[in-house]
Amino acid sequence: MIILLHLDAGPVERDGVRAALEKLGVGFEEVGLVDRTAFALRGEESPLPADSFSRLAGVERVISLQPKTPLASSTWREGGRQVAVGTARFGGGVFGIIAGPCTIEDPAMLRRIARTVKSAGAHALRGGAFKVRTSPHAFQGGGVDAFRALVETAREVDMPFFTELTDPRQVEQVGELIDGVQIGARHMQNFPLLLEAARLGKPILLKRHFGATAEEWLLSAEYILGAGNDQVMLCERGVRTAEKHVRFMLDLAVVPWLKSRTGLPVVVDPSHAAGHHALVPALGRAAIAAGADGLIVEVHPEPEATQCDAAQALPPQKLADLVSFARLVVEADGRRMSDLPERDIKPLDTAVGL
Amino acid sequence: MIILLHLDAGPVERDGVRAALEKLGVGFEEVGLVDRTAFALRGEESPLPADSFSRLAGVERVISLQPKTPLASSTWREGGRQVAVGTARFGGGVFGIIAGPCTIEDPAMLRRIARTVKSAGAHALRGGAFKVRTSPHAFQGGGVDAFRALVETAREVDMPFFTELTDPRQVEQVGELIDGVQIGARHMQNFPLLLEAARLGKPILLKRHFGATAEEWLLSAEYILGAGNDQVMLCERGVRTAEKHVRFMLDLAVVPWLKSRTGLPVVVDPSHAAGHHALVPALGRAAIAAGADGLIVEVHPEPEATQCDAAQALPPQKLADLVSFARLVVEADGRRMSDLPERDIKPLDTAVGL
Amino acid sequence: MIILLHLDAGPVERDGVRAALEKLGVGFEEVGLVDRTAFALRGEESPLPADSFSRLAGVERVISLQPKTPLASSTWREGGRQVAVGTARFGGGVFGIIAGPCTIEDPAMLRRIARTVKSAGAHALRGGAFKVRTSPHAFQGGGVDAFRALVETAREVDMPFFTELTDPRQVEQVGELIDGVQIGARHMQNFPLLLEAARLGKPILLKRHFGATAEEWLLSAEYILGAGNDQVMLCERGVRTAEKHVRFMLDLAVVPWLKSRTGLPVVVDPSHAAGHHALVPALGRAAIAAGADGLIVEVHPEPEATQCDAAQALPPQKLADLVSFARLVVEADGRRMSDLPERDIKPLDTAVGL
Amino acid sequence: MIILLHLDAGPVERDGVRAALEKLGVGFEEVGLVDRTAFALRGEESPLPADSFSRLAGVERVISLQPKTPLASSTWREGGRQVAVGTARFGGGVFGIIAGPCTIEDPAMLRRIARTVKSAGAHALRGGAFKVRTSPHAFQGGGVDAFRALVETAREVDMPFFTELTDPRQVEQVGELIDGVQIGARHMQNFPLLLEAARLGKPILLKRHFGATAEEWLLSAEYILGAGNDQVMLCERGVRTAEKHVRFMLDLAVVPWLKSRTGLPVVVDPSHAAGHHALVPALGRAAIAAGADGLIVEVHPEPEATQCDAAQALPPQKLADLVSFARLVVEADGRRMSDLPERDIKPLDTAVGL
Repeated sequence: MIILLHLDAGPVERDGVRAALEKLGVGFEEVGLVDRTAFALRGEESPLPADSFSRLAGVERVISLQPKTPLASSTWREGGRQVAVGTARFGGGVFGIIAGPCTIEDPAMLRRIARTVKSAGAHALRGGAFKVRTSPHAFQGGGVDAFRALVETAREVDMPFFTELTDPRQVEQVGELIDGVQIGARHMQNFPLLLEAARLGKPILLKRHFGATAEEWLLSAEYILGAGNDQVMLCERGVRTAEKHVRFMLDLAVVPWLKSRTGLPVVVDPSHAAGHHALVPALGRAAIAAGADGLIVEVHPEPEATQCDAAQALPPQKLADLVSFARLVVEADGRRMSDLPERDIKPLDTAVGL
Repeated sequence: MIILLHLDAGPVERDGVRAALEKLGVGFEEVGLVDRTAFALRGEESPLPADSFSRLAGVERVISLQPKTPLASSTWREGGRQVAVGTARFGGGVFGIIAGPCTIEDPAMLRRIARTVKSAGAHALRGGAFKVRTSPHAFQGGGVDAFRALVETAREVDMPFFTELTDPRQVEQVGELIDGVQIGARHMQNFPLLLEAARLGKPILLKRHFGATAEEWLLSAEYILGAGNDQVMLCERGVRTAEKHVRFMLDLAVVPWLKSRTGLPVVVDPSHAAGHHALVPALGRAAIAAGADGLIVEVHPEPEATQCDAAQALPPQKLADLVSFARLVVEADGRRMSDLPERDIKPLDTAVGL
Repeated sequence: MIILLHLDAGPVERDGVRAALEKLGVGFEEVGLVDRTAFALRGEESPLPADSFSRLAGVERVISLQPKTPLASSTWREGGRQVAVGTARFGGGVFGIIAGPCTIEDPAMLRRIARTVKSAGAHALRGGAFKVRTSPHAFQGGGVDAFRALVETAREVDMPFFTELTDPRQVEQVGELIDGVQIGARHMQNFPLLLEAARLGKPILLKRHFGATAEEWLLSAEYILGAGNDQVMLCERGVRTAEKHVRFMLDLAVVPWLKSRTGLPVVVDPSHAAGHHALVPALGRAAIAAGADGLIVEVHPEPEATQCDAAQALPPQKLADLVSFARLVVEADGRRMSDLPERDIKPLDTAVGL
Repeated sequence: MIILLHLDAGPVERDGVRAALEKLGVGFEEVGLVDRTAFALRGEESPLPADSFSRLAGVERVISLQPKTPLASSTWREGGRQVAVGTARFGGGVFGIIAGPCTIEDPAMLRRIARTVKSAGAHALRGGAFKVRTSPHAFQGGGVDAFRALVETAREVDMPFFTELTDPRQVEQVGELIDGVQIGARHMQNFPLLLEAARLGKPILLKRHFGATAEEWLLSAEYILGAGNDQVMLCERGVRTAEKHVRFMLDLAVVPWLKSRTGLPVVVDPSHAAGHHALVPALGRAAIAAGADGLIVEVHPEPEATQCDAAQALPPQKLADLVSFARLVVEADGRRMSDLPERDIKPLDTAVGL
């Protein structure tokens, strides 16, 4: 940490900062920088955050140089993580697709959709049982019954599945049967839930809150990594802006940014970003091209009869088109699809030159 | 709900929409509106949300006319709520001030701050025990021990207190001893927590998430009201924007907007919005003038020695200045401060003419 | 336009609205919609905007059904525009690349960059002479001299060029020699400049302001179209958000959204969105995949010696990689690059199924 | 400027940075800061911007310590500016109110409104002649004829007036007759217009763009100050956010922030921020309390018959209420209203303790 004094800070201010650091017992060096004084703290950790030093008289700026997400960064230094959920793979040069309905409303329809997305090329199933609904007057999801239908369907069609948990108490309730845990955008900073879910030791798809910065999102991953679970996949699903033509703005610059800071797989959800099915294919293609390690897509053959997020569900044929496009780009990059045999593959960050 | 067809929708589309409505068994009227057809649904509730109808061929727009927050609205029609937390009052023409440290770091300092804010004119104490920290590497709060210190201090100085809960399991753990529950911004849409906290039957200060719209915030209040607890206070603490000079942008237009839709008291937190102590007095004054029913302010006599949010803590004298300004404006409006004897008072919405 | 009354509007309010419409001399129908009254205006144009009617007592909502951008929409109905700037083509199934330095600082370096980007596969040159600099203390651009250097270089290397105009008086000054006019983001709503530039009859690359909605952007295009110039290309370059890892957030959903509303070509600028060269390739690839008709990219071989936007300049080799990726995707879509002979091509909107 | 190297930068990177600085001929010191190397540049001005140095190998961060707005800052050091427009005063402890219609649609109505706002307590008149309309299909304003009506009315009722200019060529056309120039939000970064308007030497009300940061806004003021005109008033009118209940979010934290950096008067426009008349009084009161030096408010007695911004026009009585509130707060702060005789007054920054 470097504490930079104002140009016009005099001996009184210098003495004050020096005394404060000495009182804290922290090692430091006092350095002249042309026209002002700087104090550089020794050692990795400061006993107080930068904000506190900024309240000392004469301080212009406090520059913290510590890595904020050391655990996420170490996954990068170690060459990246590939997360496996059943037979599906994400990251480490492998691209996977998760697809399914928004919500499990009816077991028969779930089975139909599961078969459809599998034959369109998806590698894992998605479906919501414990829903996060903005309004208490909207359909609240099927709960444990819906969860059971999801487990049965996934086993029947032989696909791994992801589903959202919303309460730390659900971890004990259904954790044993879950394949991949989804943490929804609105729970990205529900730290008790993150810690409880992490303890399951199963893959976690951590969605970014639509109001959170990328750094805050990585810090939430840091909670899971710190609890000893490194099976974390980061899922970008759009940021809220003033724009009206799209529900959330998909932050695709975050894909290369994350890949230069962490080795965790990055998955993109074009459905919740778009909010409208006609925009999903273009956003899905863009995410593939930007170097994502996977997509999670909402698909429904009869969206006009659903209780939740009807506007954004993709018809099954459009999912098949997306899979074809993924295959084209992923192979041109020297990566591979999750369902193809392993060859000499490489993560895309090489390809895009970050 | 009104389903409006496209200008160029023909008999096929009309028949399709009609058939879909008949299949759902919903009553409706088909009306010509100059150059296009509209279907107006009968009855309060539609069996499907507006989104689903928008997927039907020929539909241009679906206009939902149902009140989205009927419970919050009914508090308005019934003349508004005044929430009492111990001796402190908020709403119904009464203005209250909550003040204290960000986090309980040390019982002796807590006691000192509590006495200071009381003598400066605050009506209730605040202090964090179960903290929500963006980084797992930052100070995580004192937990149950800090909570106990808060209870003891509050009883000792004879002030009611608010503190944040972050996990539904804490409700059972400490709920009996709590005076007012704070739901922090990051948990505004943690619905299991809202429902569990609501069941305590104690006052709840519901902060708005910095990425949430005012409507989403009211819908979270609707969860609490729907669980049978109408002791809800809404707390505005700023919205995230691209602006760098201030941490969050305080949405003061939301004060009159809320007061035209709900009778719940509206409290403003200038400290978290500002992020810097020098901006807090102006924002606190502005909130008072905009018609808020209360303030919640972070105060600390030695911010340079704290672990959390040091930059925004107000020196005690500035709190006293804010209380004086509140007294000036509140009395000119015909309202009263929480510590004054009851007279003929009126809510400010009359005064600002909404 | 449909004026919808409140549920509880009575005869007095109905009479008031009816009288106001009669006074304006506008034809209308009064219709019952289950539980409320609606007034539907006859004819295309209302004599007053929707806002004015919303001030009448008893009015709940005014729904305007008129197309807001009739001229932009007509370019769509007529099958789309292909804009030609010299030998470069954009739109109508053809993909073009504009590249060059941010600013013209030195004629020799401009010549070197022009040759480099041409051999890397770019179809047109870019370079700023009349700069828009946020600070008056920053380098202000080379003005008319730089413009002359640009014309000479472009003729010498045989490439068409785009450059920004910032003042209606520049149109007369340099308009005759310009190939393509760039309207920068900060001038998107400088309507006197738009109208003056439109009168030149040359292609106009209209950048979106980072704070503007897509609809506002199309309305600026509507000014140019209304002045009789339909050689408009829309250029997305990112929207300002609270995010810190990227300068602006590239709105790629706007590509399919625009293509469902207008036939004008859509070009994407990944450089200004990214703000950092390491993010440009991923954003450029994403824009190509999302269906853009072209890219405009800042390229510089020695960015560490430039006065303006050094952080975002792409090394020439990365431009060549982007061109290769564009070729792969564009050909797989059945489109073609601007430098390839014409075959049986199709716009991408068919491919992505909007 | 301080160039900070990465922790792991070695002799090669150090030599590279050193050589680059020597080649530029800039004086510098090389300093060890505990675990890394820093280069501190000597002298006020760097020959290249920070961005360029950040492209050098081994550089982690470049910290620019130069004041970005030296001219705006000097107005602060010199004790602040009071801007006079005719008899109206803004700043230096004096509070003024500008009021009038959005647009001049009819001379008789303008006269009626001018008299009304004057008797309600306003100190200057506003009214738009050269309009900035998002759509070319909306009413475009009355132009020079409307301007003439404004001049005549202002002289007749004996009030100074503000009106917006939108084109550098209008400065010559009408500049001699104008009292105060308004630069609208959409032209905040139209630098040719700013420079041309500055040369008039008359007061300029510079509105902030709804997508601009406060720093960008001050830099636009810096253009005017740099052209030798220090009669600049800064006008906050709200920032665009995702929120739907209000058109723009009024940034009141910017008031004390500006007052700690510049001595220019700060005026607030609650009308354009609110977008709805029912929100204007609360925002106007909040701006007064936050320490603004003035308000600019849209007032119309018959908003339901206007072409522009009907929803936000305040009825005259509400303006009178705002004036009363301003009087209460301004006098309690030891400031005075523009129409009161001078006494011992002080700027509010003293009062709010910045």
